Amino acid sequence: MKKFVNDPQAFVPEMLKGIALANPDTIVYVPEYNLIMRADAPNQDKVSIVQGSGSGHEPAHVMVVGKGMLDAACPGDVFAAPPAEYVYETAKRVASAKGVLLLVNNYTGDRMAFEMAQEMAEADGIVCDTLFINDDVAVQDSLYTVGRRGVAGNFFVMKACGALAEEGASLAEVKAIGERVNSVTRTMGIALTACTPPAKGSPLFELGDNEMEIGVGIHGEPGRRRADLVPADDIVAELLDAVVPDLPFVSGDRVALMINGLGGTPISELYLLFGIAAQRLEDMGITVARSYVGNYCTSLEMAGASLTLVKLDEEIERLLEAPAEIVNRIF
Amino acid sequence: MKKFVNDPQAFVPEMLKGIALANPDTIVYVPEYNLIMRADAPNQDKVSIVQGSGSGHEPAHVMVVGKGMLDAACPGDVFAAPPAEYVYETAKRVASAKGVLLLVNNYTGDRMAFEMAQEMAEADGIVCDTLFINDDVAVQDSLYTVGRRGVAGNFFVMKACGALAEEGASLAEVKAIGERVNSVTRTMGIALTACTPPAKGSPLFELGDNEMEIGVGIHGEPGRRRADLVPADDIVAELLDAVVPDLPFVSGDRVALMINGLGGTPISELYLLFGIAAQRLEDMGITVARSYVGNYCTSLEMAGASLTLVKLDEEIERLLEAPAEIVNRIF
Repeated sequence: MKKFVNDPQAFVPEMLKGIALANPDTIVYVPEYNLIMRADAPNQDKVSIVQGSGSGHEPAHVMVVGKGMLDAACPGDVFAAPPAEYVYETAKRVASAKGVLLLVNNYTGDRMAFEMAQEMAEADGIVCDTLFINDDVAVQDSLYTVGRRGVAGNFFVMKACGALAEEGASLAEVKAIGERVNSVTRTMGIALTACTPPAKGSPLFELGDNEMEIGVGIHGEPGRRRADLVPADDIVAELLDAVVPDLPFVSGDRVALMINGLGGTPISELYLLFGIAAQRLEDMGITVARSYVGNYCTSLEMAGASLTLVKLDEEIERLLEAPAEIVNRIF
Repeated sequence: MKKFVNDPQAFVPEMLKGIALANPDTIVYVPEYNLIMRADAPNQDKVSIVQGSGSGHEPAHVMVVGKGMLDAACPGDVFAAPPAEYVYETAKRVASAKGVLLLVNNYTGDRMAFEMAQEMAEADGIVCDTLFINDDVAVQDSLYTVGRRGVAGNFFVMKACGALAEEGASLAEVKAIGERVNSVTRTMGIALTACTPPAKGSPLFELGDNEMEIGVGIHGEPGRRRADLVPADDIVAELLDAVVPDLPFVSGDRVALMINGLGGTPISELYLLFGIAAQRLEDMGITVARSYVGNYCTSLEMAGASLTLVKLDEEIERLLEAPAEIVNRIF
């Protein structure tokens, strides 16, 4: 295992400490519960948004805490759901008079933790609701999932909910926009290499020197099929052939197109994929109105990428355009 | 070789096409000369800033074109200097009444191309000057360099020059701030793996399963020494032991701290390194006033990181804080 790490068991808290030290004015890190929250939360005039998941998907979700995005994130250990108690403590600390919306990618372990946390919070009188994200078209059920998995499309749900919450919308309204964005978002990914959780010390699965996993999950779960590596044009074609008919996206649609890196793929390759996908969509009469290229939801150092489409309407486009500030700034 | 690529010879133009398609309103791509420029350049009221280098270091430099940063970037092929004629064409297209500043990382091939381009531009009556960046403390001379190499610290030179140019400063003033930032910026990097240029198809060098290259260059050039992998604490200590005494940085200083990823290292590990470095600097009495964590200047998919310190004064801090907009946005 070649990683920058001290004690593999302390990988997550040491990362969280780094996030806190890089953002001393805007972020609070609570080590007892592994949580990262906005220093100015809770704001009683807005719904608070919380997302959590296993770690290893950074920048999701601990690095997307900030104005217009999440109020807090509660990560578990690498690829493990956070304990329900930690989710509950997170919800409690950011709970506002307008309520708390918990966002959860659809994995069995995460669902259990968040549903239990919602019950605990409600028992305290906190107004709380939960929204499940399941944008991955690759497989119906999976190693850790009943139903479709939630992957990089969760970014768009967070962004729309975060923006509407900043406008002062109610919990029901914020949940409704999140559900609507989830319902028009579709993703599929592909892995060129496996990844190695620090505490495991060895790759999660094996891929041959010339193989790729099509439809891979963000924890290295199997996808649709394994095949020999092909040129980028053919990879994009296969991803679009899975994603486009699923909603379906059709000629005349305006979409957001995201090429998300899985952690180990350089951004040069992601832009190359973006160019191919944008051109093909244009050829289908689909307008790429918003573009996203980079690492949004990763699998540690896995080489690979996913392609997400979101069908836009006026409201969704307005919310995606709204300003936001997150931990992981460039400037 | 496991990459998202079609024809390896077309890797750079296909990436540039992707950048253009993702930024149709703000960026112009000129395929004949491989150049990316701001759609609103030249602005006659400001100095235009151009940087080029071999490709493979993305987001540097083709993804840092935008307001407050570069007016244009002219990349060569992967790890190869751009042709002088391409640099000249780039300078010509963005030339303003206030002149053009060419920024160049200190490598022999790049110096030759940019010096020749400056002569060609001046022969056309374009007011033009060139600034060399050499922040890497690892080695004195190198495989492709006489004198120190320019690496991730080039970000700070671009940022300060870009911000001062937006304020309407003269060419001499913009060059002077760039030279001053370069003179107080120090970097050293470390590689955990090699990288594979698409057209070569095999790794640039070999590293054992448990080895790291300390002081590596951004083209995989040898650094100071090769050693067995050690915990992150010890790696940060060695990088700081090289960087801090070199300027030197001393107790009472305010600094910018950058942990730059070399392309294949996940941002979780970069924040872990940041936390260790920030804590150690604080223990030395050095204040980390500005924080930068992410991929700024990479070596394709190389796993590794570099640590940069910039000694701040009031003017440099003001320029680093100034707003900027680049191709590679997150929202």
